[in-house]
Amino acid sequence: MPDSTTQAALGHQLMARLDEASRYSRPGPGVTRLFCSDEHREILALIADWMRQAGLTPELDAAGTLVGRNARAMAGEKTLILGSHQDTVVEGGKYDGMLGVAMPLQALQALKEAGTELPYGVEVVAFGDEEGTRFQSTLVGSRALAGTFDPASLEARDADGMTLGEALKAFGGNPEAIPQLARRPESVIGFVEVHIEQGPVLEQRDQAVGVVTALTGIERHRMIVTGKAGHAGTTPMPGRRDALVGAAEMVVAADRILNATQDFVGVVGKLEVRPNAVNVIPAEVRFTLELRSPFAEVREKGRKEILEACQQLAQARGLELSSERTYQAEAVACAEWLIEALESACQACHEPTERMFSGAGHDGLAMNDLTDIGMLFVRCKDGLSHHPDEAISVEDADRATRVLMRFLSDMRTEPQAN
Amino acid sequence: MPDSTTQAALGHQLMARLDEASRYSRPGPGVTRLFCSDEHREILALIADWMRQAGLTPELDAAGTLVGRNARAMAGEKTLILGSHQDTVVEGGKYDGMLGVAMPLQALQALKEAGTELPYGVEVVAFGDEEGTRFQSTLVGSRALAGTFDPASLEARDADGMTLGEALKAFGGNPEAIPQLARRPESVIGFVEVHIEQGPVLEQRDQAVGVVTALTGIERHRMIVTGKAGHAGTTPMPGRRDALVGAAEMVVAADRILNATQDFVGVVGKLEVRPNAVNVIPAEVRFTLELRSPFAEVREKGRKEILEACQQLAQARGLELSSERTYQAEAVACAEWLIEALESACQACHEPTERMFSGAGHDGLAMNDLTDIGMLFVRCKDGLSHHPDEAISVEDADRATRVLMRFLSDMRTEPQAN
Repeated sequence: MPDSTTQAALGHQLMARLDEASRYSRPGPGVTRLFCSDEHREILALIADWMRQAGLTPELDAAGTLVGRNARAMAGEKTLILGSHQDTVVEGGKYDGMLGVAMPLQALQALKEAGTELPYGVEVVAFGDEEGTRFQSTLVGSRALAGTFDPASLEARDADGMTLGEALKAFGGNPEAIPQLARRPESVIGFVEVHIEQGPVLEQRDQAVGVVTALTGIERHRMIVTGKAGHAGTTPMPGRRDALVGAAEMVVAADRILNATQDFVGVVGKLEVRPNAVNVIPAEVRFTLELRSPFAEVREKGRKEILEACQQLAQARGLELSSERTYQAEAVACAEWLIEALESACQACHEPTERMFSGAGHDGLAMNDLTDIGMLFVRCKDGLSHHPDEAISVEDADRATRVLMRFLSDMRTEPQAN
Repeated sequence: MPDSTTQAALGHQLMARLDEASRYSRPGPGVTRLFCSDEHREILALIADWMRQAGLTPELDAAGTLVGRNARAMAGEKTLILGSHQDTVVEGGKYDGMLGVAMPLQALQALKEAGTELPYGVEVVAFGDEEGTRFQSTLVGSRALAGTFDPASLEARDADGMTLGEALKAFGGNPEAIPQLARRPESVIGFVEVHIEQGPVLEQRDQAVGVVTALTGIERHRMIVTGKAGHAGTTPMPGRRDALVGAAEMVVAADRILNATQDFVGVVGKLEVRPNAVNVIPAEVRFTLELRSPFAEVREKGRKEILEACQQLAQARGLELSSERTYQAEAVACAEWLIEALESACQACHEPTERMFSGAGHDGLAMNDLTDIGMLFVRCKDGLSHHPDEAISVEDADRATRVLMRFLSDMRTEPQAN
């Protein structure tokens, strides 16, 4: 085992790189680095430098992804892909995305410096766009590799009216060549992403890292509750059809069902009242209902229960309720062999870990169409992300890097039988 | 008793006058007639004509109120004041306000034509401004008579930047002379206003008219619920501090307490969520709570109960709750002798009536500072007001006019002993 000085050194080195990377940002609080922006262009030179230090050969692909390959990958051997995204939300943090680019490069460099040669192809990717901050479209880089990129999304426009296609071309990408980026599944071992948890579970469990079993499925509904406006002073309480009282009961019911159901989270995040006047009985309330579960059957059963409860509540108050599903993304399971390999690495490093699921979407949602996926979560302070105060500890950075090194050095070229 | 042809004629005549009055409006749906507007000026000529037909002498006072007096009032005898306001909300209806001007004039004219001379002074007023649509200030005319007019409100500006004082001067009023309009209480018998109910109570009771016992007291609160934002996918349900779930429970609790309390109405009319995003746990909810009761002790007890329930709900969810009273107007009771006189008139006209309170404010709020007040409500369709579809029936117009005639002819100069 390496001594503690070396351990500290690894964590400090990684944190220094992440600090440096955070300077590639639009002015303002936190980190704002959008797809195909000047900051994106500039940070790729930094990441390319890290790649070379890790023994990888960097190259910008047609979709704006910086890809670094080791010699075996260059030679066409079957390849493990690691990585994450370079982009952030507006006023985001230092770690969401960039940790998953910097940590594999740090791990590979440490293995290289320790003289460990990996017996398989390795590739580290820095996808241009996962957050979808600049264009409505997202997961451009990972969808390109998976062969699921929809050329229609090249027409998505940013706030200045520039299309994704134009921005990508100006950046040095090649929109027309994106279809040729699709990998052959048989050429890929799997895709492993390291990411901050963006939640409080690891902190609550007092664990530095967590092995992810699935990326949650998501559905969103638009709910419209229609009642009847009226003078709030002259309309007696009985017989009112107050859309807000009805919607409030629905919010409470949804929360109750969500709390009572295992592996199920959700929120009413957006709610608007009409006419929204101090002395008028609310005539209409529109709200969103978002539901997530790693298990499709849990989400379906829970959704049915919530929507039925809402309909009953509407009926009881003489309100109309319409609901429409506006978004749906199915859950994606991580490959069992990758889950076990990551768990073995944790055990070898004396890291306690329990399986967990990811409540957020990641590039793995797209990569799963190409290959087996695995994810390693790193504890973050107060579960905070998409915020300038996003933080991880030097010690956790160090411990997670060691787990990843162990995972990489124990990896076999072929997946284990299930 | 007059025959039914005469009855129908009275109602039809009144409705025809109200239809004619509704043409004095800004173009657009419904009736829009603002204080000191061209439409205000023009309708006063019409009302002055009605006054003359009723045997009254019209005069514009310094506050923009058209005042019509009978000979006894002109001679300085003790005077009963009847009337209401000429102004409307934007896109209001034909009856709110104008009914209370037109009906007394119709009743006085019918009494005159029938040869009934009233043995006391009578005055019908058409106040310029009750709705407060044009300027933030309201009740200018009635406050002037009560001697409670605040000269500071002359500085209130309309949307074009014109002050109330300037508008009143241009209209033919005299801002400086308003203080001299204050009546001596001993010169006034009382103030009686006829008004559409603006609520569904009479319709539900199948009554054409209702006698009002009190104008409700009103208080408004600004409530701020503070929780903690978080990623809606990665934050487990237990331990969330969702401000909207908490606020929803408060809305439901307030509605429950309001429904369980006699003579108490209220509403959460306005509610806003921050950050109001589909996938973010709400961090803050601001809402208004308006409470009304004709009885101060009911409103106080109810408010206490609601605010305590809200605090408990906030605590149970780890939320902060701040509440601040932003408005308060005390209830005003109608004079028992006027209530009884109006009830007697109803009985004499075979009109069933139950006492009721007014959930809305009226000129009586100001006139109560000068004299005893009484109010007669007229049933309106679907309880609708402040809307182009505001409606009363010809039959109800007729029945209410007869009640008012009876009240006027039975009136004594001196109030009965309580």
